Amino acid sequence: MEDYTPDEILALLKRAREFKSGASWDKPNKQIFAANLFFENSTRTHNSFHIAERKLGLDVLEFNASQSSVKKGETLYDTVLTLDALGVEVCVLRHSTDHYYDELINSENIHCAIVNGGDGSGQHPSQCLLDLMTIQEEFGDFTGLQVGIAGDISHSRVARSNAQMLTKLGAKVYFSGPKEWYNPDFDQYGQFLAMDDLVQTSDVVMLLRVQHERQDEKANASFSKADYHKEYGLTLERASQMKGNAIIMHPAPVNRDVELADALVESPQSRIVKQMTNGVYARMAILESVLK
Amino acid sequence: MEDYTPDEILALLKRAREFKSGASWDKPNKQIFAANLFFENSTRTHNSFHIAERKLGLDVLEFNASQSSVKKGETLYDTVLTLDALGVEVCVLRHSTDHYYDELINSENIHCAIVNGGDGSGQHPSQCLLDLMTIQEEFGDFTGLQVGIAGDISHSRVARSNAQMLTKLGAKVYFSGPKEWYNPDFDQYGQFLAMDDLVQTSDVVMLLRVQHERQDEKANASFSKADYHKEYGLTLERASQMKGNAIIMHPAPVNRDVELADALVESPQSRIVKQMTNGVYARMAILESVLK
Amino acid sequence: MEDYTPDEILALLKRAREFKSGASWDKPNKQIFAANLFFENSTRTHNSFHIAERKLGLDVLEFNASQSSVKKGETLYDTVLTLDALGVEVCVLRHSTDHYYDELINSENIHCAIVNGGDGSGQHPSQCLLDLMTIQEEFGDFTGLQVGIAGDISHSRVARSNAQMLTKLGAKVYFSGPKEWYNPDFDQYGQFLAMDDLVQTSDVVMLLRVQHERQDEKANASFSKADYHKEYGLTLERASQMKGNAIIMHPAPVNRDVELADALVESPQSRIVKQMTNGVYARMAILESVLK
Repeated sequence: MEDYTPDEILALLKRAREFKSGASWDKPNKQIFAANLFFENSTRTHNSFHIAERKLGLDVLEFNASQSSVKKGETLYDTVLTLDALGVEVCVLRHSTDHYYDELINSENIHCAIVNGGDGSGQHPSQCLLDLMTIQEEFGDFTGLQVGIAGDISHSRVARSNAQMLTKLGAKVYFSGPKEWYNPDFDQYGQFLAMDDLVQTSDVVMLLRVQHERQDEKANASFSKADYHKEYGLTLERASQMKGNAIIMHPAPVNRDVELADALVESPQSRIVKQMTNGVYARMAILESVLK
Repeated sequence: MEDYTPDEILALLKRAREFKSGASWDKPNKQIFAANLFFENSTRTHNSFHIAERKLGLDVLEFNASQSSVKKGETLYDTVLTLDALGVEVCVLRHSTDHYYDELINSENIHCAIVNGGDGSGQHPSQCLLDLMTIQEEFGDFTGLQVGIAGDISHSRVARSNAQMLTKLGAKVYFSGPKEWYNPDFDQYGQFLAMDDLVQTSDVVMLLRVQHERQDEKANASFSKADYHKEYGLTLERASQMKGNAIIMHPAPVNRDVELADALVESPQSRIVKQMTNGVYARMAILESVLK
Repeated sequence: MEDYTPDEILALLKRAREFKSGASWDKPNKQIFAANLFFENSTRTHNSFHIAERKLGLDVLEFNASQSSVKKGETLYDTVLTLDALGVEVCVLRHSTDHYYDELINSENIHCAIVNGGDGSGQHPSQCLLDLMTIQEEFGDFTGLQVGIAGDISHSRVARSNAQMLTKLGAKVYFSGPKEWYNPDFDQYGQFLAMDDLVQTSDVVMLLRVQHERQDEKANASFSKADYHKEYGLTLERASQMKGNAIIMHPAPVNRDVELADALVESPQSRIVKQMTNGVYARMAILESVLK
């Protein structure tokens, strides 16, 4: 997301809204193959890219690493080189390595487009775009909007991508959550607040998933869902302190009764289901832009 | 299957026969996404739903639980809520939990159709429909037809669905198999007979698979294939006692030489291969009915 | 490959070249289902068959053995019998058993075409065809061409298929590699040479992958990548001894710096990426020929 200008982002958002309104892509009259390579578990990102690809009329290849030559020791580079040689024009990738894509986009022999579906604790640009789309649908404009991001900031690729782009677009960002899960590197984007303050201040209360798969064992062993919910979660009580037109967001999957109270997930203030719906259109816009 | 009236079933069977004769669905002029979520192993049900979906012109999303957020602890409810939000219009599900579908069809926020591809030891409606279709093709009418169901009655979702619907349609149902695998709850549908009596009486000899994956370890350890075959299986000798026009059915996969003799699986009396073929058309009829 | 005459092979190669030039198949006006059943890991063969199937306009069923009734003990025979009953017209199979296909093509009840995507240490006909296509593109004619095949000859299904067909087509074949991985059975196709001699003699230097998954544990424990590379690999030094217009081939995945130096994989003499590209068209020709 660092490389995108606000104008480019606003253009992508416009296109995503058009797709949501029923616009279709003027696809070249030939088969275009997309490959999805998810080396980390995913429900939303993976399936919404698949649906976005099909809505654009692409042929989809689901790459299953566990049944591939990756099991014989083949590297990510050689895997993508192969798919490129087979005629794949766009690869959507999720991988646990930060910046895995550098060697792919710098290769002279790999010509297909690379779309990042999440890299390690790095970036998650398509999630960022769908979050921005959901906020824009609600408030129209980003200028002066107060967005509070709470939870496991340091492991979150969502937090980083969103904080960068929201500030570029004129929003004011706040952070909260356990201090040991915060990274001072985020100070450049906004202020750290107590959870109660963040909830009362924000137009958008964005909760982040507790990612046990990215914590170490010791942290997981001592973790109490009830304690986390009480100290850093959006409890029913805290939710009652939200501004009148404020909304709740979460990249999901939600740990119900941890990051937010079970009853809030599908509540009138929640945009969590809408975020998932918008993800399809945001991803159509991204795919179209790299295929053009 | 409890909720279907005989007329509704007969209408579905008629439609399945039409599909088999080459009829096609008058599909709305838009993309329709179906998702298959099989949390239990399956070859026939899974692949024939996939083929049925494609024959109806649907876009198919194969949900792979082992590479999804289910691995991060996401519930079935939240998974289906997600797919619904992504625009999926029908989910075909197989799950080990009896009545898993209740919370899905009762949810206000899940709008997609749910098709049950088998729940725990509960129901297996699409298998039931293809069995009825195969019987109807053979005998035309169900009234007075004698159907013997033999094997692991209590764990079988096929037995339950079939016994309910066959009796509703006027057939007479008998059961046989190991007494410890029988459930007196089935007395309401028909009489328990010795295996030899069942074979000599029945127009349809329906064998059930020994489901080791649903038995406990002790039962599996003491199980002898040869003994089972001799006592409760359709041996070549027993098959020679079948009525002249009686047929053999089995939901498959068959344990050859356990539930029935190897040589009977593809014999002239067997309709096991035909059951699989009919499954595609029965499932087309089911999918069409929920999409309309 | 034993059953193909040179003329039949040359006709397939011609058709593959036509597909590469943009020709399309005159597909019958109906849905045709292909199923891919890969019981061994694969990236190139599996994905290029998938793409070839889609380019021919087929509907593709990806059979996932690990989520199928194979897990309940169902045999390969009964699995293919099932897919055939469901209406699948061509099954592409890879399996660890040599000649697994015999019982399938000899069955009276299995009607679908079987395409061998690799059987144990047996044959790999589609790899053979794409290799021949790549050689033909380079040299036009096979007569008198010198082809050196080096590496794990005895476990390689590529070596066997290629040696058989290349000699039929008039090429001269040589072998090299560790003596303990050589099989005197190959003497009928060509002479065994020292690696340096093979490199200097050959128009095509074809390296074979060290297949640790087919070696025993003891062999794997004592294996040294550096030693193998030095003794039997295409080092940079050896590559400098190649004839001026000689090319490098490898079925891939490549163990870089084992069978050949890392820098040679994507070098100007290498046709490894082209082999992958040609694989799609070779497989289209094979599929078309069995569907006609």
